[in-house]
Amino acid sequence: MADTLIRRMSSADLDFDAALTALLDWESVSNPSVVATVADVLAKVRGEGDAAILEFTRRFDSWEPKAAADLEIPKSRIDAALANINADVRAALETAAERIKTYHQHQRQESWSYREADGTLLGQQITALDRVGLYVPGGKATYPSSVLMNAIPAKVAGVGELIMVSPTPKGFVNDMVLAAAAIAGVDRVFTIGGAQAIAALAYGSETIPKVDKIVGPGNIYVATAKRQVFGSVGLDMIAGPSEILIICDGKTDPDWIAMDLFSQAEHDEDAQSILLSPDANFLNQVEASISRLLPESERADIIRSSMVSRGALVLVNDMDDAIAISNRIAPEHLELSVDDAEQWLPKIRHAGAIFMGRYTPEALGDYCAGPNHVLPTSGTARFSSPLGVYDFQKRSSLIACSAAGASELAKVASVLARGESLQAHARSAEYRILGDCDE
Amino acid sequence: MADTLIRRMSSADLDFDAALTALLDWESVSNPSVVATVADVLAKVRGEGDAAILEFTRRFDSWEPKAAADLEIPKSRIDAALANINADVRAALETAAERIKTYHQHQRQESWSYREADGTLLGQQITALDRVGLYVPGGKATYPSSVLMNAIPAKVAGVGELIMVSPTPKGFVNDMVLAAAAIAGVDRVFTIGGAQAIAALAYGSETIPKVDKIVGPGNIYVATAKRQVFGSVGLDMIAGPSEILIICDGKTDPDWIAMDLFSQAEHDEDAQSILLSPDANFLNQVEASISRLLPESERADIIRSSMVSRGALVLVNDMDDAIAISNRIAPEHLELSVDDAEQWLPKIRHAGAIFMGRYTPEALGDYCAGPNHVLPTSGTARFSSPLGVYDFQKRSSLIACSAAGASELAKVASVLARGESLQAHARSAEYRILGDCDE
Repeated sequence: MADTLIRRMSSADLDFDAALTALLDWESVSNPSVVATVADVLAKVRGEGDAAILEFTRRFDSWEPKAAADLEIPKSRIDAALANINADVRAALETAAERIKTYHQHQRQESWSYREADGTLLGQQITALDRVGLYVPGGKATYPSSVLMNAIPAKVAGVGELIMVSPTPKGFVNDMVLAAAAIAGVDRVFTIGGAQAIAALAYGSETIPKVDKIVGPGNIYVATAKRQVFGSVGLDMIAGPSEILIICDGKTDPDWIAMDLFSQAEHDEDAQSILLSPDANFLNQVEASISRLLPESERADIIRSSMVSRGALVLVNDMDDAIAISNRIAPEHLELSVDDAEQWLPKIRHAGAIFMGRYTPEALGDYCAGPNHVLPTSGTARFSSPLGVYDFQKRSSLIACSAAGASELAKVASVLARGESLQAHARSAEYRILGDCDE
Repeated sequence: MADTLIRRMSSADLDFDAALTALLDWESVSNPSVVATVADVLAKVRGEGDAAILEFTRRFDSWEPKAAADLEIPKSRIDAALANINADVRAALETAAERIKTYHQHQRQESWSYREADGTLLGQQITALDRVGLYVPGGKATYPSSVLMNAIPAKVAGVGELIMVSPTPKGFVNDMVLAAAAIAGVDRVFTIGGAQAIAALAYGSETIPKVDKIVGPGNIYVATAKRQVFGSVGLDMIAGPSEILIICDGKTDPDWIAMDLFSQAEHDEDAQSILLSPDANFLNQVEASISRLLPESERADIIRSSMVSRGALVLVNDMDDAIAISNRIAPEHLELSVDDAEQWLPKIRHAGAIFMGRYTPEALGDYCAGPNHVLPTSGTARFSSPLGVYDFQKRSSLIACSAAGASELAKVASVLARGESLQAHARSAEYRILGDCDE
């Protein structure tokens, strides 16, 4: 029954193109009742501030904050969390944080300018965002690694104040998440979640500071709320299900490749794990590994469901064929489990992150290699990038014309403005044209 | 009646904060009937391709393309446009294009990587987008400068193919726009517009190539269509009304400042022009200039309407007060019409573009100084940047672990993955831990 676990495909099949399109198909569906509920929550928080936030927190999170001040976790409680967690977990978080910081420091952009011969200065001033909000889901699926990956680039960028929000259903506070916040340098932590937390960050309230940008993953209420506040506040991307594409030459241990596929599939039923190989026998071996390793996996049900509905082992002609398919998919995670993987980099057009060689499974990148694990999903690597320091910096153009430079530019601007029938633009420029007596 | 032309305010007024909030207030309202019409157009184009595009073009643009091939403007017609326009306009477009190109070349980002002591490689590969769509409005308000500002950064980034779409109502083709497209290096031009053009670019059709990102301004149908295709294709920002904030020390010719305010106000009735000065007498002089210069302005009605509804002359205490107000507004255009303007740069937190000195009116930046004129509006400079080469490049993280490096990272990843109950992540990492016999 191994063939029911994961589909087999071949790029030589006549219907391969259509079959691949069907396999990749993913469209997030918006739910009108969720949209309406979220719109109501946003309007109430915007209008009533803390009172509405308290009301929704009592209703949705099943605990009783007495006053708005109870919504903030004091610094002493955060420090206690850092002391509470196991020493090996703390050491691992600190190692990961240090590596993430070192990598992201390479992404910092600096202001630049140049001066032209006539004295005119042109350039761009780079500044960090003043205040950023970080949403961290509460409850079961709570990921301290996500706190590190979202918070550290903001701090490296120089963001003035980093506000974390995370719901505490029934009052449960997650020590590992708080510890990660402490290690990452989060400035303030509030125990709010859902659409009310997004509203609080976007509009501000008596207690919750209004932020300039909101990042971090969340459930459908959070994602819908982010869409609705779009425009008044900056946002990160809204992620689809996570995916991995592995290209293997057939010379990696098939158990390793099977487990690399599982590590993606275990996220949730919609996650996608695809393997491409020119070696049909190797695909058979991986399929056998999948069958053998699956029953002993803790999250076997989720993995099986994801593999059956969205997984595939695909026979390809050769590496060039594999890379062409990869460029079409534009995968979130691309694992090149081949010899001398770096030689293929110039041909890879689109991928969120590229894991090269047999010793670079995605899991290392998810936690501690250094690069960010917040990556473009569902083919959006065609036009977007991993979360990075650049997402927490912004640019202002700089222009300072000398009198002589302005005079020459004004003549050009005047012609173009009049061509566009924008006469006030033309006159504003023409005032700066030097007359005979000026020259 | 001068006081009816533009409101006067003072930052010392008790109600200044509330009055400023009211003055800045801007919220784009979505129109349910437009949303429904656009959804219908998008669905038809997605399902029926060229047939639907032809039908909507006939219906909305009042001309009769016989076949889909008629929707493309041939290269010979584009070259003819370049030959048709006035020599001085062509020279001005070419000068502007050259300066825009030179400036934007400073924005190109290069791939980088570094190797750790154990041989592990980390980095980021930068690539250009494969194909970009540029929307250019048709009809009256047709701006060749907008073609240059949107197309040139894409070409500097190395975008493979740049597709321009622009409606030609009643079959009217604008030679200046085509000439600008030729100068900017646009690859193909199609005579389609509205929501059907956005759908064609987002989904592709038999004739129109599917693109990875769509940029360029448009009317409410275009903006609504862009919102609806969000996620399946990259987008630039959706702009609000244009605005300028001028800070003047009182030593610039008041006619110059009045005309600089007009150059913003003439865009449309919703445009916003605000002047801050610590010199009350100078504000009086500018008000007098406004009264005197307005009647002789070609676009006096639009300017008056914009000035009355959204303009202001504001008395401030001093430069620090002015800059604090500017940082609160986060203006699209900030003009520092003062001595030694550069000294104030470190204090400016948010602005799309900063025009420094009395010889740097916004109009020069709108056309030919070099920096982009597509800038964040409505306070979004708090978290976003001018359109630039970086909007047409994307990044892929690079990770290549050595066997020794993977082994150490895997120990850290294992602890964290088990802490998050993601056991397949842990096992995938643990396979790469070197055993005693490996070391």
